[in-house]
Amino acid sequence: MTDLANSFRNRNVLITGGLGFIGSTLAHRLVAAGARVTLVDSLNPDYGGNLFNINGIEDKVRANISDVRDHHSMKVLIQGQDVLFNLAGQTSHMDSMRDPETDLEINCKAQLSILEACRKFNPTIRVVFASTRQMYGRPDYLPVDERHLLRPVDVNGINKMAGEWYHILYNNVYGVRASALRLTNTIGPRMRVKDARQTFLGIWVRLLLEGKPFEVWGGEQLRDFNDVDDAVDAFLIAATHDDACGQAFNLGAKPPISLLDTAKLLVEAAGTGEFLVREFPPERRKIDIGDYYSDYTLIHQRLGWEPKTPLREALRRTVAFYREHLAHYL
Amino acid sequence: MTDLANSFRNRNVLITGGLGFIGSTLAHRLVAAGARVTLVDSLNPDYGGNLFNINGIEDKVRANISDVRDHHSMKVLIQGQDVLFNLAGQTSHMDSMRDPETDLEINCKAQLSILEACRKFNPTIRVVFASTRQMYGRPDYLPVDERHLLRPVDVNGINKMAGEWYHILYNNVYGVRASALRLTNTIGPRMRVKDARQTFLGIWVRLLLEGKPFEVWGGEQLRDFNDVDDAVDAFLIAATHDDACGQAFNLGAKPPISLLDTAKLLVEAAGTGEFLVREFPPERRKIDIGDYYSDYTLIHQRLGWEPKTPLREALRRTVAFYREHLAHYL
Repeated sequence: MTDLANSFRNRNVLITGGLGFIGSTLAHRLVAAGARVTLVDSLNPDYGGNLFNINGIEDKVRANISDVRDHHSMKVLIQGQDVLFNLAGQTSHMDSMRDPETDLEINCKAQLSILEACRKFNPTIRVVFASTRQMYGRPDYLPVDERHLLRPVDVNGINKMAGEWYHILYNNVYGVRASALRLTNTIGPRMRVKDARQTFLGIWVRLLLEGKPFEVWGGEQLRDFNDVDDAVDAFLIAATHDDACGQAFNLGAKPPISLLDTAKLLVEAAGTGEFLVREFPPERRKIDIGDYYSDYTLIHQRLGWEPKTPLREALRRTVAFYREHLAHYL
Repeated sequence: MTDLANSFRNRNVLITGGLGFIGSTLAHRLVAAGARVTLVDSLNPDYGGNLFNINGIEDKVRANISDVRDHHSMKVLIQGQDVLFNLAGQTSHMDSMRDPETDLEINCKAQLSILEACRKFNPTIRVVFASTRQMYGRPDYLPVDERHLLRPVDVNGINKMAGEWYHILYNNVYGVRASALRLTNTIGPRMRVKDARQTFLGIWVRLLLEGKPFEVWGGEQLRDFNDVDDAVDAFLIAATHDDACGQAFNLGAKPPISLLDTAKLLVEAAGTGEFLVREFPPERRKIDIGDYYSDYTLIHQRLGWEPKTPLREALRRTVAFYREHLAHYL
């Protein structure tokens, strides 16, 4: 990673969703690498933004509190940037079903206006978009590679799919160099633990540290998890490899693990905790996708990325972080 | 079609884009079948709506001039309807690139609000959505079936893809019974001939009848064409077969034909006319998809639809219509 980090020295980098889980972890890494970092975040309490996420680097970044739907401010902020890490998004599947229009405004309309701003005011910018495996829906086969049909099962998946395709289109038609990473379950310090809006593992960690049993729905479903530092590696690599442009890449991890085993591993990593295994609630069952894990061969072969952090270690450092800082996340 | 037509007697049917090419042709058929037909159309001069399209049935339908983006009026209009043929859309690929936000408002946001209105105020309605083969992009293989990856090459294709998926999702999650038809090139009386916004064949027919040469870009590309009456059959069938729900179906025709041969056939059908073969304009080349023709086996096997009108006959009756009525379409 040393060479990679060097390539960001004195570079102007804009991160939307920059006070969120992955965006702020990127910011910490980029500040250490000598980049000039601007963060855009709405601090909408339903999303992942949290000022504590830039604890320690608050004087070394410019935190611009604004919404990506505000196209006037985005037009200004995008100018002069070398790289845009475009991570702002509505991520809650249930919220997207309850309020589909807001999901569309953020995940489609704002993305289009960001890309229009790039095209008109900063066409040489480099863009990496945070996409999601959610758009694959219920897999036809496992592991899921990028040739798998996109068949989203919720409004969020549909809108993220459109958002991803705008990026690929602006790359192909207008030469705004963009790539997309289809994230799987990402975990680690700075994730939202207040509720399950960002990841179910957030609420597990919170309840465990509060001494309450957490709930495992179903239990047999297979999943894959990336440590946030590994996901951040992928963003940095995608921003610096020309081979990434115009492509959407799966992230992922091996081996897949059942939710039940994940719960056991979390309790083991924490040295404490208990959980209940429950039936799937009916309103979640309709948009449940069964087993899911990614084939990340494409990004491994083309860009050299692979995950490095074992799940046990990711869980251990997550628990350690929230043991110290939980109060800042409630 | 007799049984099919009978199944619409005294049924309340709403058609968005109802003054447009396909919508108005549906309206003529439904009026003849004894349906109570309401048309919604913005009469936006850039789109396909034309009051002359309901010439002869103007006293037998209710034409409601409004925009599908107006969710208050849609909420009212949708109530009490048995069937919604949802055809309103921005269809011009070039316009979608020049003004992506308007394309998004019509092809995504309005679709979501229509479906929300169905869910809340008329959950037993039956919906058929006019989708497009545009979302497949440049084919990996031919003919293109519904298993082909969706890989749109313009903003219009991305937004129509999202619009289609909202319909499938509302079917699967909320039980709003909906299906989608991925139309290929549809031609016939009442199509827009003022320019190429709806189909390149429109401007060909206009220029031919005005005694001017029309332009064929490229010429070797293979395409398939459906007569509008065949497309209308598919809408009626999809609205009456439970097997259609939750599915997107390709329409199409055999055999595929090159643009050059299509031009020759048009001149032959008209008994007059000339054309120039030209290089592709650069701004179109970027979003050109090469050869395209559909595999429509799925709708044939599941719903029994197949096209009946040979291309020669479709061209002949199109020319005959515009020989008589061209002035109403300029």
